Amino acid sequence: MSALADLLAFQRETEALAQVAERLGWDQETVMPRGAYAQRGEETAALEGVLHARRTDPRIGEWLAALDTVRLAPAEAAQVQRIRRAHERQMRVPLRLATALARTTSMAQGLWADARAREDVAGFLPTLSEVVALKREEGQALAGGGDPYDALMEDYEPGATGEETAALFGRMRPRLVALREAILASDRGASALSGRFDEAAQMALATELAGVFGYDWGRGRLDKAVHPFSSGSGQDVRITTRTDPADPLNCIYSTIHETGHAVYEQAVDPAYLLTAIGHGASMGVHESQSRIFENQLGRSSAFTRWLSGRMVELFGENAPSDPAEFDRAVNRVHPGFIRTEADEVHYNLHIMLRFDLERALIRGEMEAADLEEAWNARFARDFGQQVTRPSQGVLQDVHWPVGLFGYFPTYALGNVYAGCLHSAMRRDLPQLDGDLARGDLAAPLHWLKEAVQRHGGLYEPRDLIARATGEPPSEGPLLDYLEAKFGRLYDL
Amino acid sequence: MSALADLLAFQRETEALAQVAERLGWDQETVMPRGAYAQRGEETAALEGVLHARRTDPRIGEWLAALDTVRLAPAEAAQVQRIRRAHERQMRVPLRLATALARTTSMAQGLWADARAREDVAGFLPTLSEVVALKREEGQALAGGGDPYDALMEDYEPGATGEETAALFGRMRPRLVALREAILASDRGASALSGRFDEAAQMALATELAGVFGYDWGRGRLDKAVHPFSSGSGQDVRITTRTDPADPLNCIYSTIHETGHAVYEQAVDPAYLLTAIGHGASMGVHESQSRIFENQLGRSSAFTRWLSGRMVELFGENAPSDPAEFDRAVNRVHPGFIRTEADEVHYNLHIMLRFDLERALIRGEMEAADLEEAWNARFARDFGQQVTRPSQGVLQDVHWPVGLFGYFPTYALGNVYAGCLHSAMRRDLPQLDGDLARGDLAAPLHWLKEAVQRHGGLYEPRDLIARATGEPPSEGPLLDYLEAKFGRLYDL
Repeated sequence: MSALADLLAFQRETEALAQVAERLGWDQETVMPRGAYAQRGEETAALEGVLHARRTDPRIGEWLAALDTVRLAPAEAAQVQRIRRAHERQMRVPLRLATALARTTSMAQGLWADARAREDVAGFLPTLSEVVALKREEGQALAGGGDPYDALMEDYEPGATGEETAALFGRMRPRLVALREAILASDRGASALSGRFDEAAQMALATELAGVFGYDWGRGRLDKAVHPFSSGSGQDVRITTRTDPADPLNCIYSTIHETGHAVYEQAVDPAYLLTAIGHGASMGVHESQSRIFENQLGRSSAFTRWLSGRMVELFGENAPSDPAEFDRAVNRVHPGFIRTEADEVHYNLHIMLRFDLERALIRGEMEAADLEEAWNARFARDFGQQVTRPSQGVLQDVHWPVGLFGYFPTYALGNVYAGCLHSAMRRDLPQLDGDLARGDLAAPLHWLKEAVQRHGGLYEPRDLIARATGEPPSEGPLLDYLEAKFGRLYDL
Repeated sequence: MSALADLLAFQRETEALAQVAERLGWDQETVMPRGAYAQRGEETAALEGVLHARRTDPRIGEWLAALDTVRLAPAEAAQVQRIRRAHERQMRVPLRLATALARTTSMAQGLWADARAREDVAGFLPTLSEVVALKREEGQALAGGGDPYDALMEDYEPGATGEETAALFGRMRPRLVALREAILASDRGASALSGRFDEAAQMALATELAGVFGYDWGRGRLDKAVHPFSSGSGQDVRITTRTDPADPLNCIYSTIHETGHAVYEQAVDPAYLLTAIGHGASMGVHESQSRIFENQLGRSSAFTRWLSGRMVELFGENAPSDPAEFDRAVNRVHPGFIRTEADEVHYNLHIMLRFDLERALIRGEMEAADLEEAWNARFARDFGQQVTRPSQGVLQDVHWPVGLFGYFPTYALGNVYAGCLHSAMRRDLPQLDGDLARGDLAAPLHWLKEAVQRHGGLYEPRDLIARATGEPPSEGPLLDYLEAKFGRLYDL
């Protein structure tokens, strides 16, 4: 049993160092002095170097080999399997390629930000082509003859494949497009909020909302950041939000979203602390928690009724006094170019566009040079609008420049999982709307913790959702929910 | 030249990782959630493990051996020499001893805090005896037949020895005791401030004072901490302070003190960033900067005149309207049991007591069991008061429990260096008091940066002070300064 003990002790230190990297990332986005960027780059690179050396340490292979025939308890078996999977992937990528990827994507991030500011697709094309070439090579190295896009997706959503995802999205797209068109054709409008909303009061409300959604302040904190995120696992899980005096909904729903991610990490069984299963099961499952917090719970008409009352108390006449009007403002469907600002109806259409394009790129069915034209044509088709500026189109997201191919679909998978979980939760909690209308989230939080969150990375994503809901994940519950909700809001 | 390039590149990564540890320490004392302690312990230990492995990496010895006959430019030669010294010390301490020290001192810190809270010297004695035994063994291993206390001191103040320090302190002590007695016998009293001082206004003043003392906000920040400290080097040097509504002087002079440490780190030549000479020359030289900021500049009657005006503006009638009265309050001489609360006259007497006792302990001339009695007898002799509670005596400082033997004298050496630098600075800056009375620190800050700070660790401590002042460091200037200053304040 010494190989097991050695392997798990080594992994524990690696997990602890990965948490240090989380702390350093949080620091950079919230409290770091502005003049520390260059030095911080070296600090982060040195720590990443340590983590990379540990993850490719040849002793891991030896320990794993010694464990081939050993029978393990389920939690240990899952840990060993996760370590084995990560190790085998590390071993397949030659050092030369890993180094080239790190160097190129690190440089590409700055070049992309400049190109986006200048609306200069052509200037960024050589860099993007290089990133695509390297990611194709990585995908092929990982796939070992299989599909290179599937191999890249595996990093973010183990068990998912491009083909299955394409089929899933293919079933979703017509119903979403039809819903979108019915809403835009309806007479029923919805206004955004107007007026100015005190930013300190927004932060006070954000603090209150994090608490309402079960955030454990003893193991976390809330700060401001330009792009809200949650960071860390176990006993130190921090969230960030932002405030805009013209748009309190941005602060409110960013906070609830990040609280969803953070509560998931905080809810993982403490026995898994600093182990390979001591965090969320996948990007998709993580997103399912942030989305169900934000949308199915936070944007439900029952909850917005309670929230509407708090808004009036905090912001006076600036907040709509009619809860129904507030509900429609929160759930306003509004076509737009930017994915991160999209509503529940449009969001998945943004993802499908990116998924099809990036899959074609990695499989060699499209070149980076053809990307802008393909993006704009597809956008016109799905959204009925012509992209006129690359910053509103192909240059809007950081994902491709930094090499995150295979990541986008996990956002939509998260929405699909959230739909499944929400449907099962509604079945188990008939009194849910009454609770939400009082701002009482105890029952749904308990349900999600028991069904999903406490298991951490013990189960594979699809198995986890199937165990939680009683059936394999599918798009039906999400689409039924969207059609019912927006049908009601827009009198369809 | 490849050995040199390899060695310096390796060192640069180690320095960057040491900066990550600084960030992690700052985080723990300022923003970490209270429930994160256990996990943070593992995170810190994992990072310390990485640093230890790097510092004992056998390749360092190989690179150094290859450099034995290579002629280097001064800055590179200094870097190589600092790396060589640290490496040779690491190599002399057997792994078993290093591990036992890390484990024992880490455990001892918590046990000490409990024992101090319970006033229980006897209960802590076995732990302290074990720490002393291990530190003796470490001192002997490092000394290789020489003086074990000198060997421990070398970690904090390269080039200093116990014998020289004892002689220095022997010359200082009678003059300090005589000054103390003259002050306490004088008719001239000084009152502490009374009233309540708004804590937000204290923080605003702390921010202003850090700026006045040259702190670069672009490469730092100010936060609150229970025990104020400064942290980091180069582009990220953070300071902390604390506020007590009854005592604004604590906040003011803690801030100026930590600003002294921080400005030193910020002023080091950027060419030395993340190298072995990219930070202060020694603990003593570091303390000389914090002390000259705090005392010779910050507690000068010229500066307190300016500060008195700001106090009245900020705190109204709570601040003494008479600048002379404020000056006496700032410089009040007051016997007390606690080192960290001591005034300029008493402070070094606290250090001398600890130095004599810890040197005797490490040299085997005293046992831990005899420490309390020796402490109390010496305290009664030098301070004229009987210690009645161990928390005011032998259990007051964390240094011995965590194994910091040889560290205490650097506080007094810092005061001695500050006296030397102040005397030389006064010679070069005849207009200094006029500047200080206007709150204008530009000239002394420039003088200290040029004479001391920008050199980082390029020179050995005594050489650095000698270059800055034109003569080797000695106690005369400090004692002359103290006798003149307090003679004036107390009409001696």
